[in-house]
Amino acid sequence: MALKLYGAPMSTCTSRVLTCLHEKDLDFELVLVDLFAGEHKQPPFLAKNPFGQIPALEDDDLTVFESRAITSYVAEKFKETGYDLTRHQNIKEAALVKVWTEVESQQFHPAIAPIIFQFFAAPLQGNSPDQTIIDANLEKLGKVLDIYEAKLTSTKYLAGDFYSLADLHHLPYAYYLMKTPAASVVNERPHVKAWWEDISTRPAFKKVAEGMNFGEK
Amino acid sequence: MALKLYGAPMSTCTSRVLTCLHEKDLDFELVLVDLFAGEHKQPPFLAKNPFGQIPALEDDDLTVFESRAITSYVAEKFKETGYDLTRHQNIKEAALVKVWTEVESQQFHPAIAPIIFQFFAAPLQGNSPDQTIIDANLEKLGKVLDIYEAKLTSTKYLAGDFYSLADLHHLPYAYYLMKTPAASVVNERPHVKAWWEDISTRPAFKKVAEGMNFGEK
Repeated sequence: MALKLYGAPMSTCTSRVLTCLHEKDLDFELVLVDLFAGEHKQPPFLAKNPFGQIPALEDDDLTVFESRAITSYVAEKFKETGYDLTRHQNIKEAALVKVWTEVESQQFHPAIAPIIFQFFAAPLQGNSPDQTIIDANLEKLGKVLDIYEAKLTSTKYLAGDFYSLADLHHLPYAYYLMKTPAASVVNERPHVKAWWEDISTRPAFKKVAEGMNFGEK
Repeated sequence: MALKLYGAPMSTCTSRVLTCLHEKDLDFELVLVDLFAGEHKQPPFLAKNPFGQIPALEDDDLTVFESRAITSYVAEKFKETGYDLTRHQNIKEAALVKVWTEVESQQFHPAIAPIIFQFFAAPLQGNSPDQTIIDANLEKLGKVLDIYEAKLTSTKYLAGDFYSLADLHHLPYAYYLMKTPAASVVNERPHVKAWWEDISTRPAFKKVAEGMNFGEK
């Protein structure tokens, strides 16, 4: 049975998984979940993910949720297929992929997520973006990206001189950030900017980005 | 060369890794980092982790940081040693360990961390705990634990009927929570309470908890 991904192309977390599936050259079916109709909070979807968040992946009788768990599962199960996202043949490189994957999760994400929420989700709820929240989190994000800038002077990608899951996980939130005035936090740091231009122009992500039109008319 | 863990026994993230090392029956050296002297923000430690946060693990010439990356590295490299934390022989069970490990990281941690900060770290900075922050995050945490309660009616542990890294990752923050009035958020949910009593009395964690005296005179 083919892999079935339940999600929405404009969603950051769905995009993260879609990019991984394309990097791995896998066949899959995308089953649309209608967020505006609240389908993710209804029993059929809650049976797949009790937290009521997209995406969820079905692989035969197994259901996996949490986007970073899905990419890790896909990258490991299909390690011999498509692009090697985890450096599974080199234990040291694989360890550094884990390190920088966790950096995305624990350092980058908590700073960028509130910014994206303010720019894209708050207006849908009838609120103006809260500049105080944006500024506080931009300061946090800038400090994280200062460390990335230093790292990227010595290696081409975060975990080393190879593109990996650690880089991939940054794509969806950074993509939306780059559509806002806050893009300067990336553009002001030359190595971060070059890294962003590199990872965002890989064919797998370019295909996914076409569907990332959240907040557009 | 033996594994070297740089950290402090009272730290939540160091405790997470210590618990993993004990579950895996590994020999290691704990090298104390003096947080009160700011040793984690000085160049020798920043060379191990540029984010200036404990712990960091040295395994020969490899340095790994971010506690969840360290436990994942240790659990995988030493998969045949001690307790099997990742169910590496069963791809479906291993996938569910990944899912619930990410749930800790993305759902549980963002709710509990500000509560622990207010109760334990704010007083050290001369501030009273901010009850508004505590209450808002207790509400979030309660919603997460409602889902745990439902899950734990059907399986003994989060990922299935086996203790795993997914459960282990919860221990340090939950341990400090249980020393506060907010412990009721666990105690009011019978399956969560039974799970907590089970996982917190495993010998590996009991040894680690002896050093978890942050905020005590």
